[in-house]
Amino acid sequence: MDKSGMFEILEEDAHSGARTGILHTAHGPVETPVFMPVGTQASVKAMSPAELESLDVSILLGNTYHLNLRPGMDVIEACGGLHAFMGWSRPILTDSGGFQVFSLAGLRKIRDDGVEFNSHIDGSRVFLGPVEAMRIQRILGSDIAMVFDECPPHECTRDYACQSMEKSIAWAAECSGQPRAPGQLVFGIVQGGAFDDLRRRCARELVGIGFDGYAVGGVSVGEPEDVLRRGMEQGVAELPRERPRYLMGVGRMSQILEAVALGIDMFDCVMPTRYARNGSAFTRWGVYPVKAGGCRLDTRPVEEGCGCYTCTHFSRAYVRHLLNVGEILGLRLLTVHNLYRYMGFMAEIREAVRGGFFRAYRDEFAARQQAGDK
Amino acid sequence: MDKSGMFEILEEDAHSGARTGILHTAHGPVETPVFMPVGTQASVKAMSPAELESLDVSILLGNTYHLNLRPGMDVIEACGGLHAFMGWSRPILTDSGGFQVFSLAGLRKIRDDGVEFNSHIDGSRVFLGPVEAMRIQRILGSDIAMVFDECPPHECTRDYACQSMEKSIAWAAECSGQPRAPGQLVFGIVQGGAFDDLRRRCARELVGIGFDGYAVGGVSVGEPEDVLRRGMEQGVAELPRERPRYLMGVGRMSQILEAVALGIDMFDCVMPTRYARNGSAFTRWGVYPVKAGGCRLDTRPVEEGCGCYTCTHFSRAYVRHLLNVGEILGLRLLTVHNLYRYMGFMAEIREAVRGGFFRAYRDEFAARQQAGDK
Repeated sequence: MDKSGMFEILEEDAHSGARTGILHTAHGPVETPVFMPVGTQASVKAMSPAELESLDVSILLGNTYHLNLRPGMDVIEACGGLHAFMGWSRPILTDSGGFQVFSLAGLRKIRDDGVEFNSHIDGSRVFLGPVEAMRIQRILGSDIAMVFDECPPHECTRDYACQSMEKSIAWAAECSGQPRAPGQLVFGIVQGGAFDDLRRRCARELVGIGFDGYAVGGVSVGEPEDVLRRGMEQGVAELPRERPRYLMGVGRMSQILEAVALGIDMFDCVMPTRYARNGSAFTRWGVYPVKAGGCRLDTRPVEEGCGCYTCTHFSRAYVRHLLNVGEILGLRLLTVHNLYRYMGFMAEIREAVRGGFFRAYRDEFAARQQAGDK
Repeated sequence: MDKSGMFEILEEDAHSGARTGILHTAHGPVETPVFMPVGTQASVKAMSPAELESLDVSILLGNTYHLNLRPGMDVIEACGGLHAFMGWSRPILTDSGGFQVFSLAGLRKIRDDGVEFNSHIDGSRVFLGPVEAMRIQRILGSDIAMVFDECPPHECTRDYACQSMEKSIAWAAECSGQPRAPGQLVFGIVQGGAFDDLRRRCARELVGIGFDGYAVGGVSVGEPEDVLRRGMEQGVAELPRERPRYLMGVGRMSQILEAVALGIDMFDCVMPTRYARNGSAFTRWGVYPVKAGGCRLDTRPVEEGCGCYTCTHFSRAYVRHLLNVGEILGLRLLTVHNLYRYMGFMAEIREAVRGGFFRAYRDEFAARQQAGDK
């Protein structure tokens, strides 16, 4: 039986909205709640596919806007799609380019039928709308395509948020009717800015169109924590229990825990990889700068008790030295450790929900972060 | 039986000076002729120790001058020596800092008892002489320490070359008497610039002192090919058959073949790793820029028929894309390929000498490079 698109809910927490499940995709199953490392340009920065597999990464994120510019769709097509191109046989979710409407605000013009970008590489004109974004994601052959939307800035007025949301809903409907790659799922994206009623209306309308899953978008764009929380709550309240829910771009561990408690199943964020390249390590106790002088003579591993390749083979003193002299291996070793921590964190969450002790796990997590030992 | 220091010659070529052998060190055996990847700062650029092992790298090179500055000997000592520090359990050879007398010529002053450097990092004063260089290498715990010498520029006058050589011989004698790490071997370095009689005299005097092996130094410093060749010939002519011979810093494959034919056993060079970071691949046919636009749509591996991780998993189009957008994985994949090619090249040489067809192998190599197909 082709299970692609099926979302099996395995356990639900008695005290919160948390749940564990399996999302079946064309490239295999994904256990949720899941963290998706970001491979914007067809590479999770500094990592090889073999390393990602050994870290138990089950699904990656790629990016429509960036891959369309470089290498270009002719290259991806010649190479047989994104999976074959980057040597990754497990599932891939592709962002639609909607986030770049926000992040490249100075380089684009929003029209009724889509967005005109001036390429951030060479200034050339690139048009992305629902048709184009879905065509690109079809060529990429991702397992999960995201609808093309506008991600508005969080300080926008109610009028702007409302008009932007209406446009995003119209585009979502158009995306929904586009041809797809074999087995490709399409997720809608709930917008509506900081306005509860808009968030709810957007969610309801998307559910009316009907998608394989739903994302909460327009978050992680600099908004305060309570706005993020309300955005999640309003969105999730209107979404069907039986479809997967994805919180876009949110990656602080405390935020992930809170979102899981509200019923979110999927996450992506550049934090573990970006912090690694900036010389910082995530541990069960928080985050600290391995690059700092204090680690110069520290013969302990990056995180005591950690089972990753970095921590079982090298000292903080060595990793700190590599970062200090600009050796690529330093970035690699910290990226391995940080992804191992994030993957371990998600595995702990799934175990806690399955075992019925998610509430205790959250309390313990908060206590450990408060202790802040490393 | 502790074989450390033993050099077993296994086969000698009937038509040239080429030979295969095993050099036994405190961290295990090294089959020769051997290529040593360069890990100046306790890391072969972009590679992990696990990758180097899987590439059959049997011995690495580290650098006294650089490691002494960063991380500093207190760190290396706290971490239990260079092997433990960098997580490498196979042999290590350490350069003495003599090459930096050449490469940092604007930042140092040569005295009778050593060289005063102004650190290339922060300008602080660092003194290296035979005593200091041997002490540092003792702390590093390398399997093979090089004597401290002066590597003069290749255009120097006969007078300068002679005085410099006399000083290097005196320093070599002093190095020879210094305490060593357990099982540590010490190699002398033949200098003498472009002057045949000086090269011969230097070699004879070093043999008179008596070392575990001998290097030909003061080469790969911009001299013409014929000067390099004469330097090797003159040096090797005076060196004992039964000790290993190391040609410092020379790494073009054609040069390595010629040197093996003259009886050289050991090589090091940054070429495979540096060319990778510049976007170029070594193949059995030569070298070519993977980064070039011509590879944009090329779905073939970096080298057809190659068995490395890169070539068995990825296309030129992908590697080219990664290099083009500045992804670290691009440098990694090309470094893996280039080191695989270099290690394979040395294995082919050893096989050809063992099998009695070294001459035919050289002819075939030249023909392939001439054909230049890729």
